[in-house]
Amino acid sequence: MTPDEFRRYGYEVVDWIANYWANLETVPVSPDLRPGEIAARMPDRAPETGDDFAAILGDLDRVVTPGLTHWQHPAFFGYFPANTSGPSVLGDLVCAGLGVQGMLWLSSPAATEVETVVLDWLADLLDLPPAFRSRAGGGGVIQDSASSAALVATLAALHRASGGEWRRAGIRQRYTVYTSTQGHSSIEKAARIAGAGDANVRAVEVDDEYRMRPDALRAALDADRAAGCTPALVVATIGTTSTTAVDPLPEIGAICCEYGVWLHVDAAYAGAAAVCPELRWSHAGVEYADSYCFDPHKWLLTGFDCDAFWLADRAELVRALTVLPEFLRNAATESGEVIDYRDWQVPLGRRFRALKLWFVLRWYGAEGLRAHIRSSVTVAQRFAEWVRADGRFEIVAPHPFSLVCFRLRGADAPNEELLRAVNATGQAYLTHTKVGGRYVLRLAVGAPATEERHAAATWKLIQAAADGRVTGSR
Amino acid sequence: MTPDEFRRYGYEVVDWIANYWANLETVPVSPDLRPGEIAARMPDRAPETGDDFAAILGDLDRVVTPGLTHWQHPAFFGYFPANTSGPSVLGDLVCAGLGVQGMLWLSSPAATEVETVVLDWLADLLDLPPAFRSRAGGGGVIQDSASSAALVATLAALHRASGGEWRRAGIRQRYTVYTSTQGHSSIEKAARIAGAGDANVRAVEVDDEYRMRPDALRAALDADRAAGCTPALVVATIGTTSTTAVDPLPEIGAICCEYGVWLHVDAAYAGAAAVCPELRWSHAGVEYADSYCFDPHKWLLTGFDCDAFWLADRAELVRALTVLPEFLRNAATESGEVIDYRDWQVPLGRRFRALKLWFVLRWYGAEGLRAHIRSSVTVAQRFAEWVRADGRFEIVAPHPFSLVCFRLRGADAPNEELLRAVNATGQAYLTHTKVGGRYVLRLAVGAPATEERHAAATWKLIQAAADGRVTGSR
Repeated sequence: MTPDEFRRYGYEVVDWIANYWANLETVPVSPDLRPGEIAARMPDRAPETGDDFAAILGDLDRVVTPGLTHWQHPAFFGYFPANTSGPSVLGDLVCAGLGVQGMLWLSSPAATEVETVVLDWLADLLDLPPAFRSRAGGGGVIQDSASSAALVATLAALHRASGGEWRRAGIRQRYTVYTSTQGHSSIEKAARIAGAGDANVRAVEVDDEYRMRPDALRAALDADRAAGCTPALVVATIGTTSTTAVDPLPEIGAICCEYGVWLHVDAAYAGAAAVCPELRWSHAGVEYADSYCFDPHKWLLTGFDCDAFWLADRAELVRALTVLPEFLRNAATESGEVIDYRDWQVPLGRRFRALKLWFVLRWYGAEGLRAHIRSSVTVAQRFAEWVRADGRFEIVAPHPFSLVCFRLRGADAPNEELLRAVNATGQAYLTHTKVGGRYVLRLAVGAPATEERHAAATWKLIQAAADGRVTGSR
Repeated sequence: MTPDEFRRYGYEVVDWIANYWANLETVPVSPDLRPGEIAARMPDRAPETGDDFAAILGDLDRVVTPGLTHWQHPAFFGYFPANTSGPSVLGDLVCAGLGVQGMLWLSSPAATEVETVVLDWLADLLDLPPAFRSRAGGGGVIQDSASSAALVATLAALHRASGGEWRRAGIRQRYTVYTSTQGHSSIEKAARIAGAGDANVRAVEVDDEYRMRPDALRAALDADRAAGCTPALVVATIGTTSTTAVDPLPEIGAICCEYGVWLHVDAAYAGAAAVCPELRWSHAGVEYADSYCFDPHKWLLTGFDCDAFWLADRAELVRALTVLPEFLRNAATESGEVIDYRDWQVPLGRRFRALKLWFVLRWYGAEGLRAHIRSSVTVAQRFAEWVRADGRFEIVAPHPFSLVCFRLRGADAPNEELLRAVNATGQAYLTHTKVGGRYVLRLAVGAPATEERHAAATWKLIQAAADGRVTGSR
């Protein structure tokens, strides 16, 4: 494809996306599909000779969009948001067009330096501890997801807990990992991948607001030490997946110091809230963290994948992960003056990851990002008021951010049916969780186009479903 | 940013990229920079209020492009190519614009189904074993890189070698991993991440063409078994990083069968060659593989990141990696009728990864892809003829694909100086390796715009540097 063809088809794709966004509100949020229906619309083999671009673009409408759950839809309230925005998409486009590799500083220096600076900016915006800044010996890096951030934190923690033996000898004793019963499944997955074993991940009990109990953490650490295990890592959460509970970092951090255990803070969803000073109470105690991450791709208008991960001492991660084959050796690396991000992550290669984040921070500015967070929080709080005013429903957990967990009082089955009926209309999309053993509905606000009217319409739909007046056709 | 603003700025970015590509040949391949120069062009903090899009786009020229090594430049011959193309960039653009999550089939069914079908197509194009097809109980998935593919292969291998105990209990014995002395550093890194330990990775000796020696592999397996280790994984390479050597898969595969060890085949770079029937000799014996990967983002006109990874039995990977927290439970998953790609990879979240590969396969068709591979091979073979005709130089390894390894006869230092001088001109970019203890220059062909004339000009430049007639100013 020549540059001129790219220009022509590029305009067409830009138009297609602009139209997709402009019309999103008019289509069902989620599809009504049987497994295999999309695959059946595709031929069995790749074409022998190339297709026209018009045919390819046409298949987006014929094959792709009918098979999507639309995460950018204003009535998408499922999981956590994974929002994006115009400047993010255009930053990604530049990244794809440049097609450079930032595995080493040398292999495309701007890819590394822009990332380091933008993550320093972001640390400032969230008022993260000074140690996390690149000029202070810490620094940030973009991972694909909070799962990968949890994994590299686990590896650095194992390296430290082993006195540096882990890298050479591997897992040679029982290392234990701690998170609350509400911690994300990626913590267990990271421990498993690292060879620590699912059985050595402790699910620490929570209080009645689903926050990790420091006394229970201490008891677990003591019990494991007494049993001959080596506690390696505590993962505290700011904004748990089920209910956005905030673990008590000041107490947990002090315990991690006392026991010499690596503290990783997983703020995947709620970290974005710290751009607003009035929500920074959620980050009290973050100065205890050895590492911290949050996902701009969840709630900060930056498309997936973009997890921002910081360390208080970057050398601890680099020592754990570095490999230096001959074909990567170069004078810049040997000078010690540059960051080589390949040593901060699982893969060797990396694209120019910072571009979209840079575009987003510049286009919206700090004020624009705060406005987005505040708007989501306001809509969620309004939704919670409506739920509270209807005696058939109960709110099951504090909701300081943009997620509201609620349910019909009583048994689980009517709640399961309610969720099914609401989603089957295609007019809104919610997901569920279990809290304290009970089936609970989650409404998470954060898609960029969501306004109060979308939440209001969804609440009317939920009430109608509770009345038995919604019978999904699916 | 409204859809209409996106349309306007989107056109501008498309133009910017088209111009970048059209002018690439006129700029230096690599920058002349000191560490910190790019960062110094950026302010200390993010803007408080949003910037104009024109200012952002302007900074691409002021801050970004002066700091790039241009991997798409026709005179970029470093590392391995990481090429991209118009349809790849546009597929990525659609992916970013849709902003959907394909972690579960349910969370956006088309993202999963298109990926499964496209990887079946690609398995056909490469004539991979029938077991790798999704309908046969195998199947493909897109990983970010061959490093991550090596990691998940390692995890599945450990799970199998432990009789299923690994997942629960972690690493409880010494597992050993085998690759040749020429295997990629990501194999050692994967073993380290998995907790097996660097010391348990065996670098198996190679023959005089840098291919793994089956007898040496067998000896290493026997020695480790005798020492009480559990051999878990052999990684054979089709197209090693240093010289593109092809390990003898038929012999290695038979040994892996005999010893019951997982065989992963890393064809990161050279796998793309298998789209051409005349290069498929390189894949003889691939039917022994439990898993196989190659990078369309290296040599198949698909932008980074896009590693295609297949398994002969997908259940082995899913068993190793599955986690199912309540908030991800759904009827489709429980039906067993769908693929949930979250269980095939480290991260939970995933974007609509297949779009760009789908666009590339459709735009070029099988014939277009073969033409690209053949063109690269032809240029490389021509380059090798020129080197061979100049008595000052020697070619140090077979060069069946598009990489030529060569050097000035004699000591290393003049070769190091030659590379420095050539790269300092900005007219071409090569990298180096060590082969048999000697410093060697690598010229890898594969950037989409590279023609024979670019290789010819680079050869003239190399000859001039050997004559001492090139004195880089850097």
